[in-house]
Amino acid sequence: MNRPQDLWALVTKVRTNSPLVHNITNYVVMNNTANALLAAGASPIMSHAEQEVQDMVNISGALVVNIGTLSPHWVQAMDMAVKKAAETATPWVLDPVGAGATPYRNAVLADLMEAAAPTVIRGNASEIRALRIAGAKTKGVDSTHSSEEATEAAKSLNADYGSVVCISGATDIVVSGDQMATLSNGDSMMGRVTGMGCSASALIGAFLAIEPDAFAATTAAMALMGVVGTLAAGQAQGPGSFQVALLDQLYQVTEEQFLNTLKVSYAKGEKAVFSHG
Amino acid sequence: MNRPQDLWALVTKVRTNSPLVHNITNYVVMNNTANALLAAGASPIMSHAEQEVQDMVNISGALVVNIGTLSPHWVQAMDMAVKKAAETATPWVLDPVGAGATPYRNAVLADLMEAAAPTVIRGNASEIRALRIAGAKTKGVDSTHSSEEATEAAKSLNADYGSVVCISGATDIVVSGDQMATLSNGDSMMGRVTGMGCSASALIGAFLAIEPDAFAATTAAMALMGVVGTLAAGQAQGPGSFQVALLDQLYQVTEEQFLNTLKVSYAKGEKAVFSHG
Amino acid sequence: MNRPQDLWALVTKVRTNSPLVHNITNYVVMNNTANALLAAGASPIMSHAEQEVQDMVNISGALVVNIGTLSPHWVQAMDMAVKKAAETATPWVLDPVGAGATPYRNAVLADLMEAAAPTVIRGNASEIRALRIAGAKTKGVDSTHSSEEATEAAKSLNADYGSVVCISGATDIVVSGDQMATLSNGDSMMGRVTGMGCSASALIGAFLAIEPDAFAATTAAMALMGVVGTLAAGQAQGPGSFQVALLDQLYQVTEEQFLNTLKVSYAKGEKAVFSHG
Repeated sequence: MNRPQDLWALVTKVRTNSPLVHNITNYVVMNNTANALLAAGASPIMSHAEQEVQDMVNISGALVVNIGTLSPHWVQAMDMAVKKAAETATPWVLDPVGAGATPYRNAVLADLMEAAAPTVIRGNASEIRALRIAGAKTKGVDSTHSSEEATEAAKSLNADYGSVVCISGATDIVVSGDQMATLSNGDSMMGRVTGMGCSASALIGAFLAIEPDAFAATTAAMALMGVVGTLAAGQAQGPGSFQVALLDQLYQVTEEQFLNTLKVSYAKGEKAVFSHG
Repeated sequence: MNRPQDLWALVTKVRTNSPLVHNITNYVVMNNTANALLAAGASPIMSHAEQEVQDMVNISGALVVNIGTLSPHWVQAMDMAVKKAAETATPWVLDPVGAGATPYRNAVLADLMEAAAPTVIRGNASEIRALRIAGAKTKGVDSTHSSEEATEAAKSLNADYGSVVCISGATDIVVSGDQMATLSNGDSMMGRVTGMGCSASALIGAFLAIEPDAFAATTAAMALMGVVGTLAAGQAQGPGSFQVALLDQLYQVTEEQFLNTLKVSYAKGEKAVFSHG
Repeated sequence: MNRPQDLWALVTKVRTNSPLVHNITNYVVMNNTANALLAAGASPIMSHAEQEVQDMVNISGALVVNIGTLSPHWVQAMDMAVKKAAETATPWVLDPVGAGATPYRNAVLADLMEAAAPTVIRGNASEIRALRIAGAKTKGVDSTHSSEEATEAAKSLNADYGSVVCISGATDIVVSGDQMATLSNGDSMMGRVTGMGCSASALIGAFLAIEPDAFAATTAAMALMGVVGTLAAGQAQGPGSFQVALLDQLYQVTEEQFLNTLKVSYAKGEKAVFSHG
């Protein structure tokens, strides 16, 4: 299921099936997110009105909730949408942007995860650690900053909520039960462009809409994002041309480029069982 | 009035007069829309506060209302703005994004069209069909999906509201009374970038601000959008570079390129009277 | 302090220190603004909820308030944020987008400046003149349109509020007490892209976060924006490729390019004391 060829098969399935992905996301990245989904072959819907979010969940293959520029009406709509997602067995992704930065964010995140367990959570190491604290069913975890600590936080969130957890960064780690994927693609330029993590979360939504195995879907989405990041960096002069190249690559990346660029390894029960790239 | 040279004359008039266009539009495309207007030579204003939308309509040459990411306060502002547009004889464009997707959208669209008849309506075939149902003064139309059906829906909306109706897609159709223009420019890449339709609607606003004949203004705006789409596709590797090239082309397209690229034909009373390209 | 080498030293300090800049800005330009800050080496936060803006000000090195797409909840958050900035001695920038266009904008601007004097105000000539009238402690100034008049308005705002005032345009003028810097970089293409002024304001925020002399910080930010505008115009075909090149240049401009491109002169007590370029 998780061989590079299997991940590529999911990339082509997104392109073929063009799944509808409902996004309740932040103002800064809406355009990026919509364009990343379109370039990858999916169909984005952006909608946040309490009057229609449940109807939108009903017609969508997945829901992506991103709290980057949250405010009360949006939070209310997120709550309604994730409950409807749970009710209709629609997979949903939580992107906890800025977790830990303010008490308000932490409270909203705890409430959302209580309302319905996310199918997938994706954040950077700092956000995943902060989310662990915000949503901790066992209180009192500390907030150290190594990426090992983030992996522990990811495992803890996975244990408490059943969510697949993805820590993105120079290395992307995907955790689910005793499965763990480590991806080493992408480029440091991705830190100089806003919305890269948010685009990754949106792509995870697209893959969840066409693949019921959430660990495989998340790993495939992160593989795609990382590979096109690597390829785009090879064409870019700076963060402006990088963004342009990234969308071009999402649209045109071939199986050969994907398989030749992808660096992924898997661990199961702490023992590596597969390595590629 | 509608010869290619006449359409080009309107393109140059937008560049020369730099009309102010007031947009109440969705979060996803605001940046695209503003940049498309600027590149074409117009001046965008984005404003949605109930406290000032009427003042903005007062100083603008046209109003563009796009319901892509609607919510109650925005809908209230749209209602106030279209009534002020009617009162001040300011032309206005309705972009019914996602018409038919939810009951809320349909209800809002019906209310807006009841508040003031749009000067121009622009949407894709599915939206125009759905709008016909949402705003039907005669109830009971069905919802089939051919583009002929969309043309019938466009004619029906035109008959009920007096609005020029534009169906955009691989072929763009503009309907007004017994006049019909068919434009065959653009590129399939436009479907891989968010905000292309919204940019077209914004451009229609700019052309309405400098040309009282709404059919000619709409046809000229769609001609410009289609021509620059064709030219941009010739320079692009994918949807990222396509967007960049599109803005460059909006800014720099010449009369010669426009006339050599444009494919437009007209029908009057079901008989083609003109064909070019 | 204000020699070109000193301005460059501030550019490198932003890159090294990566200051956190809290933006309450408009929907149209949020993405541009975030990307300009990232490309220049700073870290953007966009947040507008009344529930968290004070916490965000607390952790940020500067605050940027831009009223481009204002509405009541956002205005309330702006008010809370600028008061917290004053309380915590956090520098803040006011970008009075569209000042003078509507009574609502004028009233909001007067209230914000009354709530807390901005560290820096940046607008175009028309906005600075209108702001002078909106915020005039002495009423009755007229609204003529020459750039000399804008300079007088800038001096008057500086006298009333103590704010450094920057008038941006073909020539950028920075006024503080008896100091005045005049910058002649940039390119007319900047008027064909939305968010250039807003990006300049955001960059001023980044420079204020690493340099307590607000006149020097503002001059350095405008110098950087102008220089990269000049360099980007040399690479661009139109407004699309200009935006891409601008972000690339913000990221990669070197000391040599900066010093060779920069055109700045200073006047003190109406007498030029320094000229370069």
